Amino acid sequence: MMGGDYAPLEAVKGAVAFTAEYDLPELHLLLIGDEEQIRACLADHPLPSEKYTIVHASQVIGMNEHPTKALKEKKASSIAIGFNLLSAGEADAFISAGNTGAMMVGALFSIKTIEGVLRPTIGAYMPREDGKLGLLVDVGLNADCKPENLNQFAILGSLFSRHILNFEEPRVGLVNLGEEEGKGNILAQATYPLLKENKQIRFIGNIEGRDILLPKAEVFVCEGFTGNVLLKFAESIYDITKRRDIHDEHFDRFNFEQYGGVPVLGVAKPVIIGHGISQATAFKNMIRISMRMLQTDLMGKMKASFTGDLRPRL
Amino acid sequence: MMGGDYAPLEAVKGAVAFTAEYDLPELHLLLIGDEEQIRACLADHPLPSEKYTIVHASQVIGMNEHPTKALKEKKASSIAIGFNLLSAGEADAFISAGNTGAMMVGALFSIKTIEGVLRPTIGAYMPREDGKLGLLVDVGLNADCKPENLNQFAILGSLFSRHILNFEEPRVGLVNLGEEEGKGNILAQATYPLLKENKQIRFIGNIEGRDILLPKAEVFVCEGFTGNVLLKFAESIYDITKRRDIHDEHFDRFNFEQYGGVPVLGVAKPVIIGHGISQATAFKNMIRISMRMLQTDLMGKMKASFTGDLRPRL
Repeated sequence: MMGGDYAPLEAVKGAVAFTAEYDLPELHLLLIGDEEQIRACLADHPLPSEKYTIVHASQVIGMNEHPTKALKEKKASSIAIGFNLLSAGEADAFISAGNTGAMMVGALFSIKTIEGVLRPTIGAYMPREDGKLGLLVDVGLNADCKPENLNQFAILGSLFSRHILNFEEPRVGLVNLGEEEGKGNILAQATYPLLKENKQIRFIGNIEGRDILLPKAEVFVCEGFTGNVLLKFAESIYDITKRRDIHDEHFDRFNFEQYGGVPVLGVAKPVIIGHGISQATAFKNMIRISMRMLQTDLMGKMKASFTGDLRPRL
Repeated sequence: MMGGDYAPLEAVKGAVAFTAEYDLPELHLLLIGDEEQIRACLADHPLPSEKYTIVHASQVIGMNEHPTKALKEKKASSIAIGFNLLSAGEADAFISAGNTGAMMVGALFSIKTIEGVLRPTIGAYMPREDGKLGLLVDVGLNADCKPENLNQFAILGSLFSRHILNFEEPRVGLVNLGEEEGKGNILAQATYPLLKENKQIRFIGNIEGRDILLPKAEVFVCEGFTGNVLLKFAESIYDITKRRDIHDEHFDRFNFEQYGGVPVLGVAKPVIIGHGISQATAFKNMIRISMRMLQTDLMGKMKASFTGDLRPRL
């Protein structure tokens, strides 16, 4: 509850909005943070008492603190407690709009990686004019990648796209500087044949920068350096439209805040990292996505993809 | 004259427009291409006879031909003849909106690289809301780079920014996934100290994707993979604004076609590669940029930067 610029009020409002919109008997929210502050917010925005438990956290990791150091030293922070509950099985999913680095470090070191996954990844949504969402993986967790990492991101991204973004057979494109096979840097050239031979995904070849916002593929694979630069560039486009008073339904969807955070894919439990400027809708959507990850048993499907033989499972 | 989707008419119109706008006694245009077609265009769009010579080229390299193969086999193509004239000193600059790959191969292998330059680069303009242009280098000529390559792109880009884009002391930013020193992939981490110690440039640190369209720096340095994906992504933003009937002065500047091609930096003579969809204004601007490169002795300044001691020359 303590993460983000508007904590804990907007987090509380998001929890209230989710609970009001979705009637899920199995839902129980653990509100982790400063108990007094959370209670004050709940006074104005009440939640049914059977729907939540407050888990007091006396510390907060600031947005500019060093992730590893802060997580190690602030055992009573909401992020540290959240990861403890998640790894102990007392929580099924963990969501925070707090310190992104601490969330990444926590996801990597507190939660087990799915067996067989070399590196977990973080995906981000790419808004398409048809109202649907593409998925760009990786967007910053892995600045340097090996071809096999990208091949695994393609599997993880495809499963997320299928079960959470509702594409029956998501197409995978390899982000590249040209369309033809054989184009690209050393990494892209070495990744292409792996994707081509991967029967778990629907690979459609190279995708250029100009096609990432088009419905040519549903999953766009690249290392986290290019993905991160691209994502932040796309975010800045939204800022420009706002500054210039441009009102357009499609460009409004470049407001990445509304999507409610990006999933960490490849770890054994749902972890969603929210934007620092998350407000109620973002928190509501983060809860919705994590619920959907649980309801569809996405983690189970990911585990199955990385164990046993490699029959196509999509 | 045979390059681009509207050849040779738009190339001829561009030459006419440039000649009408700039009164340069030293200007003489070599119009390389099919003589008959060029004459037909000149009949409707006349050029003062002392301002041009037609150099007949009986072949054309198609937009989809293999660059190296085509350049080797089509000795009578307008691109092959152009590079021959340039390397022989019979032309001072070469401009074409033809096959981009053939233009790159020609620039790399027909024209000498400036002594000391490890790899030439291609820069692209990034429109800023203040009406000025940032420069992103590299945008695709070098998919894989070493730190020293990026360090040299920073010098070449700074000189272009100073003398052609008129920034007195262009600031250089290293494109990266975080702002703090130490962030990034292996390449960016290794490049940072080189840029920091480079006294020929004004390095201001890491620049994130969200800052590339802002006036935080004038030269943005990255390898050609990320740069190419980013440039084409930016181009697609313009396409979206057109499809959605958005009219905005700033987004209109995302129409990269208007800038008239991107310079190859690091080769000994001006080579400008135009967009395939170049029309008259683009051709006019390409001639203007190459004239400015000659008038400011940009190549001489680049040569000086890579010879002798490393006193700051900016």
